[in-house]
Amino acid sequence: MDRNLLLTLRYNGAYFHGSAVQKNAVTVCGTLQPALERIVGEKILIKCCSRTDAGVHAEMFCLSFHTKSSIEPQRLVLALNNSLPEALAAYACREVPPGFHARYSCLGKRYLYKIHNSPVKNPFLIDLCCHHRYPLDVERLNRACQDFLGRHDFSAFCASGSDVADRVRTITDCSLRREGELVSFEVAGDGFLYNMVRIMVGTLLKMSYGRIAPDAIPEILRARERKNAGPTAPAAGLYLKEVYYDLPDPEN
Amino acid sequence: MDRNLLLTLRYNGAYFHGSAVQKNAVTVCGTLQPALERIVGEKILIKCCSRTDAGVHAEMFCLSFHTKSSIEPQRLVLALNNSLPEALAAYACREVPPGFHARYSCLGKRYLYKIHNSPVKNPFLIDLCCHHRYPLDVERLNRACQDFLGRHDFSAFCASGSDVADRVRTITDCSLRREGELVSFEVAGDGFLYNMVRIMVGTLLKMSYGRIAPDAIPEILRARERKNAGPTAPAAGLYLKEVYYDLPDPEN
Repeated sequence: MDRNLLLTLRYNGAYFHGSAVQKNAVTVCGTLQPALERIVGEKILIKCCSRTDAGVHAEMFCLSFHTKSSIEPQRLVLALNNSLPEALAAYACREVPPGFHARYSCLGKRYLYKIHNSPVKNPFLIDLCCHHRYPLDVERLNRACQDFLGRHDFSAFCASGSDVADRVRTITDCSLRREGELVSFEVAGDGFLYNMVRIMVGTLLKMSYGRIAPDAIPEILRARERKNAGPTAPAAGLYLKEVYYDLPDPEN
Repeated sequence: MDRNLLLTLRYNGAYFHGSAVQKNAVTVCGTLQPALERIVGEKILIKCCSRTDAGVHAEMFCLSFHTKSSIEPQRLVLALNNSLPEALAAYACREVPPGFHARYSCLGKRYLYKIHNSPVKNPFLIDLCCHHRYPLDVERLNRACQDFLGRHDFSAFCASGSDVADRVRTITDCSLRREGELVSFEVAGDGFLYNMVRIMVGTLLKMSYGRIAPDAIPEILRARERKNAGPTAPAAGLYLKEVYYDLPDPEN
């Protein structure tokens, strides 16, 4: 009997050249696939919730695959963690309806961007945060974040060269918060363009220098020109935090 | 005019083969010394508060050196951080009396050992914690910690092969605490033998399996046999946290 399984992972992006399989690089799926195929005993086709770039982390990354294996989902998680490297961990596995697809069934995602805001770099945050040495007025920048909320064409916040046609996305939550030296940018929405979160952060950082006006975001969105937004912030601060699906409660 | 300077560092031990200079390995002092000599413009002799092994971290590591340079201590810190790698940061610098020696003037130290206590490894704690998958009864182990307090011969908690003659040390603080999945062992004392903290932790972990009795520490201390204590816990969990000196308050 063929089952469709949804697997949830967590990984440290510093150890991978992104999530998608590549011929000559260590990637998340390139590491996961052979381990998974050894356990289920057959070739499988993995569908991922999205792609992440080299250096980008995931607190939650989802993928689905069909398998003839009858392995119990909890056992699959244990077996995977016995063979995966420390930088990649399986957290949960459950059966989902046959038509479920980790990418096409996804209703939305939440990203977190971590900024270490301090004059001196912290040796224990290497690869885990973006370091920003100049003071950040978090309250003011958080007000600017509110301009991202709602349904907009995010062409200005998409890496040039991306060939996605529909660039309209809906942002449901967007905020900047400080906890000591850690400044966290969080954004949730129904979908994200290539480099969109990193360009949003780069825009806020440029705003903090006074080189983008505090009220400029609505106009940048309207003009749909990549060059009006800020630079792409480094990969190391970015975490895929949650992936949303409409699924019945798991049976156990 | 010759001045004696005390410099405080922080480093991520995963990036170094220990603190002491080695011919063919990247070490803390091997990285610091050329950077420091370029800034003060002369050869210097560095005295360190202690040695740390490969993989061991320092939230605070102190060293002193004499220099003819008139550079202002705060400028020295800035200049160092401009040339040091991200894994090694300078935090403070101050002038100290001519006879001060980072090792011989040291009154005591505090170490922290971080245990990530969870069935599944956390990809974001690689090299920063020791992972322990089985449940820890922190309250019971914390009671056992109290047996380390006071003045004892710690021969049983010293790496075999160490040629230190006097193995009597005084422990002034010793505890085990839990904060969610993080279990922290903290110990302060007037001095520590080679691998002493890691063997203390290894003994507590072996106690957690029931393979050392909960009240066995006094007898292990008395017998002074390394084989009676537990194994040496991994380097990755260990942090030198504080170094104590009797110094006048800094002038500024």
